[in-house]
Amino acid sequence: MDNKAVAAIARSVRTLTIDAVQAANSGHPGMPMGMAELGALLYGEFMNHNPVDPGWANRDRFILSCGHGSMFLYSLLHLAGYDLPLEELKQFRQVGSRTPGHPEYGHTPGVETTTGPLGQGLANAVGMAIAEQMLAARFNTPEHTVVDHHTYVIVGDGCLMEGITSEASSLAGHLGLGKLIVFYDSNRISIEGSTELAFTEDVAARYRAYGWQVLPGDAYDPDQIRTLLAEAKADQRKPTLVILESEIGRGSPNKAGSHAVHGAALGDDEVAATKKAIGLDPGEMFYIDPEATAFFRTRREELTALQAEWRKTFDAWAGANPGLLAQWKEMVGGEYKDVLKDIGLPQYEKGKGVATRQASGKALQAIASMLPGVVGGSADLAPSNNTALPEYGDFTRDNRGGRTLHFGVRELAMAAIGNGMALHGGLRPFVATFLVFSDYLRPALRLSALMQVPVVYILTHDSFFVGEDGPTHQPIEHIAAMRAIPGLRVLRPADAEETGEAWLMALEHDGPTVLALTRQNLPTLEKADGEWKKAMRRGAYVVKESETEGRPELIVVATGSEVSLALEAVEAAGCDARVISMPSVELFRAQDAAYRSALLPEGVPVVTAEAGVAQGWDALAGSGDRIFSIERFGESGPGGDVAKALGFTAADLAELLRTI
Amino acid sequence: MDNKAVAAIARSVRTLTIDAVQAANSGHPGMPMGMAELGALLYGEFMNHNPVDPGWANRDRFILSCGHGSMFLYSLLHLAGYDLPLEELKQFRQVGSRTPGHPEYGHTPGVETTTGPLGQGLANAVGMAIAEQMLAARFNTPEHTVVDHHTYVIVGDGCLMEGITSEASSLAGHLGLGKLIVFYDSNRISIEGSTELAFTEDVAARYRAYGWQVLPGDAYDPDQIRTLLAEAKADQRKPTLVILESEIGRGSPNKAGSHAVHGAALGDDEVAATKKAIGLDPGEMFYIDPEATAFFRTRREELTALQAEWRKTFDAWAGANPGLLAQWKEMVGGEYKDVLKDIGLPQYEKGKGVATRQASGKALQAIASMLPGVVGGSADLAPSNNTALPEYGDFTRDNRGGRTLHFGVRELAMAAIGNGMALHGGLRPFVATFLVFSDYLRPALRLSALMQVPVVYILTHDSFFVGEDGPTHQPIEHIAAMRAIPGLRVLRPADAEETGEAWLMALEHDGPTVLALTRQNLPTLEKADGEWKKAMRRGAYVVKESETEGRPELIVVATGSEVSLALEAVEAAGCDARVISMPSVELFRAQDAAYRSALLPEGVPVVTAEAGVAQGWDALAGSGDRIFSIERFGESGPGGDVAKALGFTAADLAELLRTI
Repeated sequence: MDNKAVAAIARSVRTLTIDAVQAANSGHPGMPMGMAELGALLYGEFMNHNPVDPGWANRDRFILSCGHGSMFLYSLLHLAGYDLPLEELKQFRQVGSRTPGHPEYGHTPGVETTTGPLGQGLANAVGMAIAEQMLAARFNTPEHTVVDHHTYVIVGDGCLMEGITSEASSLAGHLGLGKLIVFYDSNRISIEGSTELAFTEDVAARYRAYGWQVLPGDAYDPDQIRTLLAEAKADQRKPTLVILESEIGRGSPNKAGSHAVHGAALGDDEVAATKKAIGLDPGEMFYIDPEATAFFRTRREELTALQAEWRKTFDAWAGANPGLLAQWKEMVGGEYKDVLKDIGLPQYEKGKGVATRQASGKALQAIASMLPGVVGGSADLAPSNNTALPEYGDFTRDNRGGRTLHFGVRELAMAAIGNGMALHGGLRPFVATFLVFSDYLRPALRLSALMQVPVVYILTHDSFFVGEDGPTHQPIEHIAAMRAIPGLRVLRPADAEETGEAWLMALEHDGPTVLALTRQNLPTLEKADGEWKKAMRRGAYVVKESETEGRPELIVVATGSEVSLALEAVEAAGCDARVISMPSVELFRAQDAAYRSALLPEGVPVVTAEAGVAQGWDALAGSGDRIFSIERFGESGPGGDVAKALGFTAADLAELLRTI
Repeated sequence: MDNKAVAAIARSVRTLTIDAVQAANSGHPGMPMGMAELGALLYGEFMNHNPVDPGWANRDRFILSCGHGSMFLYSLLHLAGYDLPLEELKQFRQVGSRTPGHPEYGHTPGVETTTGPLGQGLANAVGMAIAEQMLAARFNTPEHTVVDHHTYVIVGDGCLMEGITSEASSLAGHLGLGKLIVFYDSNRISIEGSTELAFTEDVAARYRAYGWQVLPGDAYDPDQIRTLLAEAKADQRKPTLVILESEIGRGSPNKAGSHAVHGAALGDDEVAATKKAIGLDPGEMFYIDPEATAFFRTRREELTALQAEWRKTFDAWAGANPGLLAQWKEMVGGEYKDVLKDIGLPQYEKGKGVATRQASGKALQAIASMLPGVVGGSADLAPSNNTALPEYGDFTRDNRGGRTLHFGVRELAMAAIGNGMALHGGLRPFVATFLVFSDYLRPALRLSALMQVPVVYILTHDSFFVGEDGPTHQPIEHIAAMRAIPGLRVLRPADAEETGEAWLMALEHDGPTVLALTRQNLPTLEKADGEWKKAMRRGAYVVKESETEGRPELIVVATGSEVSLALEAVEAAGCDARVISMPSVELFRAQDAAYRSALLPEGVPVVTAEAGVAQGWDALAGSGDRIFSIERFGESGPGGDVAKALGFTAADLAELLRTI
C-alpha cells in the first residue's frame, strides 16, 4: 500500500476513535491515536487475513494486549470490512453493542482474545505462536504448506511491567518462536504520569536477554516499519520486539503526549480542535477518509484471493494426504468429540489405593494416544502433577512435533498460553500446577471462564493432605474461590474411576475445567449407583445407599478425598446414611428440582464434607453445624497428623454424624 | 572468620540437613547442601544480627526466597545460636515443631517472612529495603545513624522464572535500592530436570537491564564471595545480584548435581555415603562440627557487642532528638494506635453522594497527617484509587523521605512489597488497585493473611457499577473469593462515613484488611443505630429500623453500595423492613449468638443484597431465593444500564422483597 493510504486509514482511526469515545464519554483515545499508522499497516498490508471469513484457519493472528485501546481494533475491523457496521462504533461501550469497553472474544468478529487485564494478551499470543508451530509440524508436508502464519501483538508500557509478560517472553525466547512479532507502543506515559515514575528499565536489553530480536523504530515512519517487519520475519529463530517510539493521543493539538489522553474522552473542544488540525469540519462525525474506504475495498478482494489461493493448496494437500485430512478435521474442525467414546480408560481394582493425580496421569496417556490435539504441560511440577507425555516428545526449539511443554515456574503465563493455544484452534491444551498455586494463575483462569475456552487445569495436591510442605502448600480456600468464578467447571473426583470420567467430562465440555486431584492414595470405591458415570455428569450421585433406600436418616455429601473419609465415618458412626459423591457442585446445582430432591429428599438432614472452607456449602447443609470443613490455615506434618491437628479425621466426622 | 570455620559450618549445615530430611523422609536437601558455604558466610560474617535478640530493629534482614530449602535456615539459625534447639531440627516437618516444611514468620525466631510460594521472598525483601531507606531518611541525623542495614536474599531458578520477581526487580532497580543484595543459587536444576528445559535466558543481562549490578562468582570460593560482597556494598545506588555457580546437593557423592536431590530425602544409603565422604561415621546423627560450635560461641559475643554499640548510638540519638524518639516509639515501637482516636475524619452532609473511593482518599489524607508511618501507593491507578499523598512527596531514588510509592502496573509485587514493608517494622503500608485485579495479587494477599501482617489493601471499583470498562473490569466473584481466605478481613463500607471508620478499623487491626470501595457516588446515610461506629466493629448494624422495632416483617442485609440500593428498594416495595449494613461478614460471624440474634431475630426472613455471587450468603439468607446476587459476568455500558441488563436495580430488589 502507498503511504497516502496509510495516512488516510490512520486519520480515519483517529476520527472514529475520538468520536466514539466522546459519544460514550468514556474510553481510552490515547493508544488508538498513537498507533493509528501501525494499525493501517497491519490491517492494510502486513496481515494475511480475510475480513469476510474471520475464522480462516491460516490467518495471521493479531492481539491488542493493551485492550483498553479497543477503538484501535474496532476502527480497523470496521475499515477493513469485518462485520462491524459503523452503527456499532457509534454504540461504543453501550450494553448490547459489539463494541464493549475492552475487546471480547466471541463478541466481535476479528477479536482473537479478550484483553484488558494487562499482559495476558501477549501471553495468549505466545500460546497462539506455539499452536501454529505445533500444527505446522503435524500437518505441513514437503509438498504442501497449510499452516504458516504470524502472530502480531501490540503491547504498552503496562503490559511490559506485568510479571506475566516476563514469564511469557522468557519462554517465547527459550522456544525460539520466530513468527511472533510484538510491537511495543513506547509512548512513555502511564496512568499516573510519565513512565519515569516507575518504569526506567532498559526494555531492549531485557528482551535481548530473553533471546529476542529487538528492533527500534519510529511509529510514524511507515517505510521504516516495513523494513523492521522484514527483519523481524527474516529471523525465524527469535521472536521480535519492535520498539516504536510514539506519542500517546497523537493528533490532539493540546493533549497529545500527556496522560490526560490515556483514559478519558478528549472533551468536545479538543475533539473539535483535533478535527480542525487535520482539516476536518468539527461537525463531521465518525468521519472516514474516502481513500481508506477505497483502499480496503480493493484490499478485501486481494485478501479473498489470498485465502482462495490457500484453499487450493489445502485441497491439493487434502487430496494427497487423506490421513492428515482426517486428523485436521478432528483437531482443527473440532470433531475430536466423536472419538471420546472409544477411549479405553484404565481399569482399577476396587478398594485399592490410587492417588487421583496418578489416575489422571494414566487417563491422560490413554486420551493422548487417541486425541493428537491433546498437548500441554506443567509449571515445573510434571513429576508431581503426573502430566508428562513421554511417548510424544517435548515441544522444543528443535522439535515442534513434541506434545509436552515445559512451562517453567511460570503459572500465570502458562494458563494464559493455554488460553492462547485453545483460542488458536486445533489443540486441546492442558496446564498443571499445585492447586494452592491456582492463586498465581487466577487472572488467566478467570479469562478462561469469561471466554469459555476449553483448557483443562490439572491442579493436584488438593488439600492439607499434602502434609509436610505446610500451610503455604495446603489449599484451604481455593476450591471455594474457584467455584465462585462464573462459568468455571470445577471437578473434584473421589477416586481413580471418577478421575477418568472427569477427564472425559472435561473433553466433552466446550469451556474450561479444573480437575482438583489428590496427592495421597484413595481407595477405588464400590458405587451404589450402577449408572454413576451418567449421574456424575449431573454433578452428584449415590455412592452408598442407606438401608431404607428412599428415606435415609442422614445424607453425607462429600467431594474428592472426603468421599472415602465419609464412608469410613458413616461406618464408624453406625448410622444409616446415604453417601453422595458430588464431584461438581455447579453441575448438581444446575439440575432440575426432581434430580436434586431425588438425591437429597426434603427433610433429611444433610452433612457436607470437604477439606476446605465451609463457604458455599450452607446451601446444601442448611446449617453451619452440619458442614465438616476447615476454617484456618493448615500445619506442616505428615497428612494424617495434620488431619488430627485440624480435627479432620474420619473419627471427627463420625462424631459429628452422631450428633445429628 | 577463617575459611576453616566456613568449612566447618558448611559441613554442619549439610549433615544437619540430610539427617533432618531423612528423619522426616520429606523435604528438600539440595538447596541447603549447595549453598552451605554462603550460609556460613552470611550468618558467621556478613550479617549484623543478634541471635539473642532477633527483634533488633537495625539487624540485617535475610530472606530465603526459595523457602523449600528451609533446612538451610533452620541449620544456620540453630548453629548461630537462635532459640531453635537441636530437638526442633529433629522434629523437622512434624506438627507442632518450630521447623515446618517451609519457613514461617512468627513461628521460628530469625525467620523474617514466610516463603515457599516462589518469588515472593525477593519481593518481600524489596519491601524491606524500601522500608530501611524510608526509616533511615526519617530518623538518621547528621550526628547519628540509627537505621542502616542491608537486606540479603537467596533466590533459586524458580524464583527468577516467576513474574513477581521481574516486577519487584525492575522496581528495585528503578528505585536504586543499593542495600539490597541478592544471591542467585545458580545450580541449573529445576524439578523437571535441567534448567535447559525451560530457562535459558541470560539472567545477568536481564538484571543489568533492570539497573542492577551483576556479579558472577563461585559458590565454593569464600574469598571470592567476600570480594563480591564488598563490591555489592560499594555500589550504593544499585541493587546487586551475585550469581553463584553452584551444585545442588553438594556433598552427596552420587546425587549431587541432579534433580533427584532437589525435593526428596537422599535415602539411608546416600546419607551414609555423604557422611563417609566427609569422614564421618554414618551412625553419627545430627552431627555438628565442634569448630562450628566454637566459632559461633565467640561470634555471638561479638554480635551482642555490636548491638550494644548500636544501642549506645541510639541512646545518644534519642537524648539529642526527643521528637524523633517519640516518632520512633510510635512507628517502630507500634504505639501509633494511641493516636487513632485523635484523627479527625472528614464530615459528610447526609444524603449527598460521595464515592467511597473518594471518601477513602480523604480519610487517608487525615490519617497520613497524624501517622507518619502510613505510606504506600497504587499499581499505576492512583488517580482512580485516590491514594496519592501529595503533601509528603514521592518515594524515589533521590527522595527517600517521600511517602507515595509508584509501583507501576505490578500488582503482585506491590502486595508482596507491602508485606515486606510491614514485616520490616516501622511502617503501616497500604497498596491499591482495582478490586477486579485482586486476582493478580492474590498469592501475596494469602501470605498477608497467613502471616497476619497489617497491610491495607485499597481495592476500588468494587462491582459491575464500574460500568463501561466491561466484564474484564467488573468484579463479580472477588469479594466472595477474598472472604474465603482465612484470617483476611474484608470491609465493604456503605457510604463515606463508614469508609472513614473502615480505615480506622484497618489501623486498629494487627492483620491485613481489604477495603472494597466504589467508583460511583453513594449517598451518605442516616443511621438508625446511634452507636453505629461501635456496632460496625462487630461487623453489622441497623441502618434503618422497621416500624415494629423488635419484630420486623423482613430484614434486608446488604453491603457497600447495596445498602443504599436496599433502602430504596424497601421504600419502593413498601414493606416494613429492617435494613442492616454488614461491612464485614467475618466480624459479624465472629460475634456471640446474642448479638447476632439481636440483629437477625430467629424466624424473621432475611434477604441479602450484594453485587456479586451468592456464594457464602446462604448461611444468612437460608434460601437461595432470598439472595439478591449476580451469577454471571457483567456487561460493558453505563453502570445504570448494566444494572438493568443484569436485573440488579432497586426495582428488581423491590420485586424480590414483595415476594417474601
